[in-house]
Amino acid sequence: MSDDVAGFGELKIIAVGDELLEGRTADTNSGRIQRALGGHALRCGLIQVVPDTLDAIRQALDRTAPGDLVFMTGGLGSTPDDLTRDALAAWAGVPLDEDAAVRAQLEERWRRRGISVRAGVESQCQVPRGLSPLTNPVGSAPGLAGRLCGRMFVLLPGVPPELEGLLPLVLDRLHREGALPTGRATLTWRTAQIAELQLVRRCDEARAAYPSLGWSWWLSDWGVDVRVSAAPGDEHQLADVGARLDAELAHLVYTRDGRDLPTVVKDLAVARGRTIAVAESCTGGLVGGALTGVAGSSAYFRGGILSYANDVKVAQLGVPVSVLDGDGAVSEACVRAMAAGCRERLGADLAVAVSGISGPDGGTDDKPVGTTWIGVATPAGVFAGCYRFPADRTRNRLLAVAAAVDALRRVLEDGDDVSPWARRDTWCTR
Amino acid sequence: MSDDVAGFGELKIIAVGDELLEGRTADTNSGRIQRALGGHALRCGLIQVVPDTLDAIRQALDRTAPGDLVFMTGGLGSTPDDLTRDALAAWAGVPLDEDAAVRAQLEERWRRRGISVRAGVESQCQVPRGLSPLTNPVGSAPGLAGRLCGRMFVLLPGVPPELEGLLPLVLDRLHREGALPTGRATLTWRTAQIAELQLVRRCDEARAAYPSLGWSWWLSDWGVDVRVSAAPGDEHQLADVGARLDAELAHLVYTRDGRDLPTVVKDLAVARGRTIAVAESCTGGLVGGALTGVAGSSAYFRGGILSYANDVKVAQLGVPVSVLDGDGAVSEACVRAMAAGCRERLGADLAVAVSGISGPDGGTDDKPVGTTWIGVATPAGVFAGCYRFPADRTRNRLLAVAAAVDALRRVLEDGDDVSPWARRDTWCTR
Repeated sequence: MSDDVAGFGELKIIAVGDELLEGRTADTNSGRIQRALGGHALRCGLIQVVPDTLDAIRQALDRTAPGDLVFMTGGLGSTPDDLTRDALAAWAGVPLDEDAAVRAQLEERWRRRGISVRAGVESQCQVPRGLSPLTNPVGSAPGLAGRLCGRMFVLLPGVPPELEGLLPLVLDRLHREGALPTGRATLTWRTAQIAELQLVRRCDEARAAYPSLGWSWWLSDWGVDVRVSAAPGDEHQLADVGARLDAELAHLVYTRDGRDLPTVVKDLAVARGRTIAVAESCTGGLVGGALTGVAGSSAYFRGGILSYANDVKVAQLGVPVSVLDGDGAVSEACVRAMAAGCRERLGADLAVAVSGISGPDGGTDDKPVGTTWIGVATPAGVFAGCYRFPADRTRNRLLAVAAAVDALRRVLEDGDDVSPWARRDTWCTR
Repeated sequence: MSDDVAGFGELKIIAVGDELLEGRTADTNSGRIQRALGGHALRCGLIQVVPDTLDAIRQALDRTAPGDLVFMTGGLGSTPDDLTRDALAAWAGVPLDEDAAVRAQLEERWRRRGISVRAGVESQCQVPRGLSPLTNPVGSAPGLAGRLCGRMFVLLPGVPPELEGLLPLVLDRLHREGALPTGRATLTWRTAQIAELQLVRRCDEARAAYPSLGWSWWLSDWGVDVRVSAAPGDEHQLADVGARLDAELAHLVYTRDGRDLPTVVKDLAVARGRTIAVAESCTGGLVGGALTGVAGSSAYFRGGILSYANDVKVAQLGVPVSVLDGDGAVSEACVRAMAAGCRERLGADLAVAVSGISGPDGGTDDKPVGTTWIGVATPAGVFAGCYRFPADRTRNRLLAVAAAVDALRRVLEDGDDVSPWARRDTWCTR
């Protein structure tokens, strides 16, 4: 929930392209633009995805307002269905001028690639009067920017690498034109092992105490983020609320600096000189997959054992047959044995083990679908916690991955002899 | 703007959520909806992404027209910023009624999880009069569907797995309500191990021969799908083009019946009574994670060894130190040894091994980033193939997962003594 900023309108994005309306391609450009502008107190009020027709683009332009910063992506190429320039010029009532510099750049580009000037060049050299080009460092279509009808317009090609290449130039231009408000101060707490609704409730008192701050909650792959922002003049409130939330959320928070959870684990493991291994049953490798998604994880990640079949748990991890026969594969005794065996056999300082019933089948009254045991072995001992995840197979597995990775984070933070589950207020039921 | 289809308006999608407007999360739900409706001659005319405010949602609703099929995603949860139900009711001028069946389902859901009814339940039981609920098979928020103000509305939760879980029920409901134009007859080939542009080119001749058919290409997690559709009266052409594409695409096609690649592997393995294990280095567990994403995979999946560190490759898989010193970890000799060692130590009929340089670091002139070896061990021999994936770390790893799973598919289809890479036209370079 961002708030409007005095003097500036909204950011509005118009993504043009039939391919975005047929399910073949998702509009990822809007996210790129938003992230590039993220430090600024500019609220994005509307994203419109429209087809390659003059009429649809005109209607989308009608939904912008004076003061808005309007990004248009796509439709700047040289084929007949590239209509963004024409549509904007027609809507604004300005002519299209040929830009000699753009033409020279395009011709130079083709000359270097050994091809002669191609059909379609005419349209790519056309610039709606009032805009000026931004040289594309990656492809042929230039970006265009300038003020028209009281709005600031930025037109960018739809091909993501070209758009990404142009964004730094766009930011420069917008700064020079005074088209960006100053940044809004924000703090973000990234939490794991707590559901969104519980987290919102944990913030209730702080929200009530600081009603002028902006609060929002974001689901991530690892848990839920809380973001608090302050309007200019209210920044001092952030420091106060920050101390309050730190105390309230405590160990639920894995970072306040934006890193994702596997990166936090990597940084902690590397800083403490610890190596890690995994033993996975229901997650089938996704814990290892998550940890190794971070570049540089080879500095601490040794590997793991995927013990999906029970006899693999016995042969590769040393889980006693009596545990499997007595307690079953989804049990405290089993994940303790898995973690200890994995730590020893893979020669790691720490090992995490996961065994659960992801669904849809396999649930019982005692152990319903979602029941998941996680074990952690350290040089000082073996710990285990039990979860009941509430969702379907896919999501239960992802929740188990986040919980397992976060259990490692807590052990790395708190020391080998402290159970990562000896706290209140997580999804863990014991 | 409306290419109205036989009395139907357009598909319009309204994605509600601040998180979609701050660049943290991309709207992938619109693509899911479009793909689910893809077989119908229904044009998507506009996607709007709007913030969590009553006013923004109202304005988005103003941009729909009678006859439209309107999907709204997000804002159906139980927190104060979930406003979709309220906004639609206010816009349509209908009251919100508490739905007893929805309440009973939510309470039953919580009872099963051993927790008492929570705050926020009130809003989740509210249904704008005129809509009726669709039970969510995955999460708590029900879907809602029905006619209001001359439009057909479908409200779905924004969490992708919940939305995916509800889409089949939505299609049923829309069919029963006559809210979809008649389906076009369609055939879909799901392919792996070929890039989109190459695949399009492989279809060129068939497209030229059948110009009245509709052709589209869709990226999936496993490769690229080709979908061909026929207008009423042209259905006979589908059979002809089907035989032609079968011959042209041959083993690139893993199914024509819609299953995903890991499900195809599971079905083949179970039918042939084969067990499978994995040995992963650069993918870190994602191959095992993909295979075990399918319910019932315990019928054939034994487990695996994640050998990220080289000494784990030696100790757990029996890779000779001389191979690591001589050829290196990313080499034909290494994946052959990994696959053979994994097959033997885990007691599986088939094993697949992956070792590559995912990036961003670690590339050399000889072995640039993206270089990935995949090995397969069968009772009859060991085979290996080399890929050079063209993307960043995340995507290179996913491409490697798809290639490894597809290698298993080909061995299961063709027999133990045939290399899965002895074919032309894959990404494999040898």
